[in-house]
Amino acid sequence: MKIKIAILGYGNLGKGIECAARQNDDLELVGVFTRREPATVKTLTGVPVYAESELLSKKNEIDVLVLCGGSATDLPIQTPQYAKHFNVVDSFDTHAKIPEHFKAVDEAAKGAGKIAMISVGWDPGMFSLNRLYGNCILRDGKDYTFWGKGVSQGHSDAIRRIEGVKNAKQYTVPIEEALTSVRAGENPELSTRQKHTRECYVVAKEGADKARIEQEIKTMPNYFADYDTTVHFITEEELIRDHSGIPHGGFVLRSGKTGLQGENKHLIEYRLQLDSNPEFTACVLVAYARAAYRMNQENMTGCKTVFDVAPAYLSPLSAEELRANLL
Amino acid sequence: MKIKIAILGYGNLGKGIECAARQNDDLELVGVFTRREPATVKTLTGVPVYAESELLSKKNEIDVLVLCGGSATDLPIQTPQYAKHFNVVDSFDTHAKIPEHFKAVDEAAKGAGKIAMISVGWDPGMFSLNRLYGNCILRDGKDYTFWGKGVSQGHSDAIRRIEGVKNAKQYTVPIEEALTSVRAGENPELSTRQKHTRECYVVAKEGADKARIEQEIKTMPNYFADYDTTVHFITEEELIRDHSGIPHGGFVLRSGKTGLQGENKHLIEYRLQLDSNPEFTACVLVAYARAAYRMNQENMTGCKTVFDVAPAYLSPLSAEELRANLL
Repeated sequence: MKIKIAILGYGNLGKGIECAARQNDDLELVGVFTRREPATVKTLTGVPVYAESELLSKKNEIDVLVLCGGSATDLPIQTPQYAKHFNVVDSFDTHAKIPEHFKAVDEAAKGAGKIAMISVGWDPGMFSLNRLYGNCILRDGKDYTFWGKGVSQGHSDAIRRIEGVKNAKQYTVPIEEALTSVRAGENPELSTRQKHTRECYVVAKEGADKARIEQEIKTMPNYFADYDTTVHFITEEELIRDHSGIPHGGFVLRSGKTGLQGENKHLIEYRLQLDSNPEFTACVLVAYARAAYRMNQENMTGCKTVFDVAPAYLSPLSAEELRANLL
Repeated sequence: MKIKIAILGYGNLGKGIECAARQNDDLELVGVFTRREPATVKTLTGVPVYAESELLSKKNEIDVLVLCGGSATDLPIQTPQYAKHFNVVDSFDTHAKIPEHFKAVDEAAKGAGKIAMISVGWDPGMFSLNRLYGNCILRDGKDYTFWGKGVSQGHSDAIRRIEGVKNAKQYTVPIEEALTSVRAGENPELSTRQKHTRECYVVAKEGADKARIEQEIKTMPNYFADYDTTVHFITEEELIRDHSGIPHGGFVLRSGKTGLQGENKHLIEYRLQLDSNPEFTACVLVAYARAAYRMNQENMTGCKTVFDVAPAYLSPLSAEELRANLL
């Protein structure tokens, strides 16, 4: 019997879940739920679309609800709300607010006897796991996380809000020298500017003052002022042709020492190179949806993160198959 | 109260455990147990040495016994034997025999109400985990494991058994072109010869026929015949000066596709670069010793592998601290 999953929110992440579900024989996508008028939403694979208001009435047809809303305003409401009725998985990624999100979700899920898996994806998610494993193994060491090369939606949006900007795409790029130094075991102290550069591709409105736009980008506090930023003005056609993808990725490194005097150096490096950030995130969510269902079947309840999930729960294979083939 | 661990077997791995324990404030190494005459064994840090025959009498002073014997003859006996009395951790690495080892150990540990963590280290171990995570996330994909550059003890030993060889060290080296092709998402089919080369540093006995030795190495079935092998004859002094370390490492890669038509490529790469193979392995064992103790405190019993351990058990930090700092 397949695990029945449903999607709430049909943006890039929701579409990613729809595609990822098809790659997993033991999962069945039973529906997409949306705040929009269902008749206006057409799914990629013909999965039926329902109004969000119908969700509770379909409670018994859904094993895990995958929440595909945003971290700013959707998930802080939706995850605790739906954890009262469903096993849920979300990709809540506002790192600073995870403890408070956890608390709200944990109460809801425990009360309902459900599992709620939060902050699943790659950062938080797979990167967090690699920080944890690295820290536990190399106790005397240093952590590094680099992001990119990849599109930052938040930074692209910030540029678009500047007067005279028609469209924009921003790439976060790790600085090769910094990576090289970390890999060499030099344990450098790296400033924000030494870790990443920011590359901006900007379409200006006709007649706009490009010099002013460039200046406003480069001096924007928090977003760009602390980085070496380059700004390229291009046409809308070039933006569509060359910058339509949503690639991302990055590196988690743990550099540490062992031995009686710390005489031996070690490096653990985890790298992601992703053509599509939302589709990869969706693949992680789907694996953890499987885990949520299986853990709940074993009577576990409450809010969980990637730290709480024994890896075997993620796989459709049996424990025997895993030991024989992957160990 | 600290978790009390003990070591059985005081070779390179045992010494690594001794060093690793000092890097973990919540662990206390209470003793080294050996088959040798205890008076002849001197520990690096002054930890007391006992005869193996004293182990059972110290049962109540030991929370986890770390088994540091070899996979060929020691662990198949020791792990089931001591799982009847202690929580144990081993680094059993004969991949093909893991299912049968698991079965013997599981019965012993369950009968005694203990946890027995087997096949812990980096391969099996951290590499296995990365194969599992990669497989669960990128369902439509391909796995690659490369080893090295590093010293293969088994291959070095095989060379030493050839007549006329005084000493030898063998390095397994991943082939850069193969790695490049995998990283480019080309999903190549790679033969044994296309993945690794073997570099041998050999000290010949005086008057030995070097041409014959080289020929015997290069044509040795299983060990060298399927690889491009280079043989360097060097002096004993050079061997000691340049090849005394036990470095190792390697790569686990998962290359996969997502999207409606598999139009987006993704690469997950996990890399280890280790100055000391046994010391790194020891660090992993110590983290899983902590997990074994904590899982047993929660009344879990039986044989476990890295697949069965929720990552949070590995860390001395609380769940709250982990969520706040590493997620």
